[in-house]
Amino acid sequence: MHFTLLSSDKHTGARRGRIHTAHGPVDTPVFMPVGTQATVKTLEPRDLEAEACQILLCNTYHLYLRPGHEVVKEVGGLHRFMGWDGAILTDSGGYQVLSLAKLRRITEEGVTFQSHLDGSRHVLTPERTIEIQLALGVDILMALDECPPHDADTAYHQASMERTLRWAARCRAVHPGDEPALFGIVQGGTLRTLRARSAEETRRIGFSGYALGGLGIGEGPAAMYTTVEETTALLPADAPRYLMGVGTPQDLLECMARGVDMFDCVLPTRNARNGTLFTSTGRVNIKGAAHACDGRPVEEGCTCYTCRHFSRAYLRHLYVAGEILGLRLNTIHNLHYYLDLMRQARQAIDAGRFPTWKDATLARLCVEPTTPQHTQEMHTND
Amino acid sequence: MHFTLLSSDKHTGARRGRIHTAHGPVDTPVFMPVGTQATVKTLEPRDLEAEACQILLCNTYHLYLRPGHEVVKEVGGLHRFMGWDGAILTDSGGYQVLSLAKLRRITEEGVTFQSHLDGSRHVLTPERTIEIQLALGVDILMALDECPPHDADTAYHQASMERTLRWAARCRAVHPGDEPALFGIVQGGTLRTLRARSAEETRRIGFSGYALGGLGIGEGPAAMYTTVEETTALLPADAPRYLMGVGTPQDLLECMARGVDMFDCVLPTRNARNGTLFTSTGRVNIKGAAHACDGRPVEEGCTCYTCRHFSRAYLRHLYVAGEILGLRLNTIHNLHYYLDLMRQARQAIDAGRFPTWKDATLARLCVEPTTPQHTQEMHTND
Repeated sequence: MHFTLLSSDKHTGARRGRIHTAHGPVDTPVFMPVGTQATVKTLEPRDLEAEACQILLCNTYHLYLRPGHEVVKEVGGLHRFMGWDGAILTDSGGYQVLSLAKLRRITEEGVTFQSHLDGSRHVLTPERTIEIQLALGVDILMALDECPPHDADTAYHQASMERTLRWAARCRAVHPGDEPALFGIVQGGTLRTLRARSAEETRRIGFSGYALGGLGIGEGPAAMYTTVEETTALLPADAPRYLMGVGTPQDLLECMARGVDMFDCVLPTRNARNGTLFTSTGRVNIKGAAHACDGRPVEEGCTCYTCRHFSRAYLRHLYVAGEILGLRLNTIHNLHYYLDLMRQARQAIDAGRFPTWKDATLARLCVEPTTPQHTQEMHTND
Repeated sequence: MHFTLLSSDKHTGARRGRIHTAHGPVDTPVFMPVGTQATVKTLEPRDLEAEACQILLCNTYHLYLRPGHEVVKEVGGLHRFMGWDGAILTDSGGYQVLSLAKLRRITEEGVTFQSHLDGSRHVLTPERTIEIQLALGVDILMALDECPPHDADTAYHQASMERTLRWAARCRAVHPGDEPALFGIVQGGTLRTLRARSAEETRRIGFSGYALGGLGIGEGPAAMYTTVEETTALLPADAPRYLMGVGTPQDLLECMARGVDMFDCVLPTRNARNGTLFTSTGRVNIKGAAHACDGRPVEEGCTCYTCRHFSRAYLRHLYVAGEILGLRLNTIHNLHYYLDLMRQARQAIDAGRFPTWKDATLARLCVEPTTPQHTQEMHTND
């Protein structure tokens, strides 16, 4: 993998780039749909291809437990298993272990946990997560990290961040190359000095890309935006920056304005299955009785398959009747919205009009835009 | 609607025909996928189009209760509502009232019942079901009938059949035309004299097509095949014959050999959602551990989207992991199997080799073929 920085916005930290992987290019800023169990829920690869999707995120924790990385390897790797020819990034499994597994215990060695599926005992170490991700055969691997609660005390944040650095070094030691790529993860909560040390030391170890972990977990948008801005300023310009697990349309715009290149989030797909649909003027709850006889599409002018063929009345009916097709049509629309938003962002950066596009887009969403404070630093940090 | 009988097999009762509807032609023998709640579960219209599907069945009972036929009418009719440009047949609602509703009561006037959804009280009369189906705007309407249990006593079968005849006449009285079409339904259990009277009197009322109701409900294949054969012999050759709610691949072949032109059944779609897949050599239970590392498709050489892109290992994983995509990929395969079987049957009749094709197909399924007994009568009854 290698990364080409194509251009930088003059007024914000927004960047246009391209990640070159063994499974094709990935144009950044990019939103990666989440395919937890080797499927973006309800969708087929051809649906993602129809949206010009270039990269997916899959979850190592889930695939390790079921069907097992050895099974995936035996049938030809994750791409072949799920019929997806584009790029795949996997997380390390650490986040899911800490949020889903039972009786988890963190030691210097790694994380011991019981499966949420059958209670079986497992140990996830830095070396083991690399082994699992290599067996899956993906394009971008993530180093093992700990994501502490945002309101953990400073001492815990510090100790956890230092251990994450040692885990990062161990991951890099067993996988020193760039093919597949390995990304390090910057932690440190919203504590500026911890983030700075984490960024500096992670950068010193040296990775193909750098992720920002531990954000979008309750600290609030203002703190997140500030931390993102301060952290990207400390990361090399010639490597992609990935903000893990974030976020709302507003979050994407504000954080790409602060130098983030990659995002992933379950929001568009999970909201779709809850009947909440994204539009350029805000969210629509398709369950509402107001839609019962509404012959209009979710969004006028939207070019997704759902909006081209079906009315709000039909989508509401499918939802109320418990029909699986409704979950799928909603997912198609929401992912189209997210991927189209990123497409528009890339075009705006290319055309040198990112700030006005961002403000206009947020205004339509009735969201107050915020302005990055440290733009100068961003452009002088490497 | 009108029906063209294109050719008849020389050695069996099998027929090639074409139903001309306002939403395109329907080549017979035909299998109609079931779209109960205005969707073939998990599928989009484009999936059905990809399989060259020409006609769907939807359920009046379900659509009347939710979203309501008035809602469907208001947003432009059922075709537009569900985005389906092909033909649609609706049942009368009578069968679902008797199998799903609570506190149902049959009188000469019609059927009084409580909704299985909210307990609300409704009355379905012959006139009302025509009104509802016309509001839905479908291509083929079914007359109201009663489908008694197959083991009801003779007196009940007789009384029920006579009432169904009176209901049929009332349906025809309020909808005397052929556009949209109205089909009458022959009842009488497996009792030869009752079936004969029902067929004769239904034919005397005069419909665009004739259905065989009350079969495939526990009487067993042998009794069903005999009743089908005896009944089609009494129906006009120049109208389509529709065997309601049937059946297995074997049932389709045996009954088209006995003069049936149209079928519908939830078997391919419901089995798909239970993980049971149809192949030319019998059924495959995709849940089985034997498939865990099986890189082969469900059926080698199958041209469906599922078999062209995914392994048994992946389908098993999706099923075990509870992923919606698995239900959908299974449904795509099973419907392909059913519609392809019908395509093969039509080609075999066209080519004058239906009997050998039928025997070879059943032999691969390890099913013993049976021979229609009354072929001569079939060809002399009109």
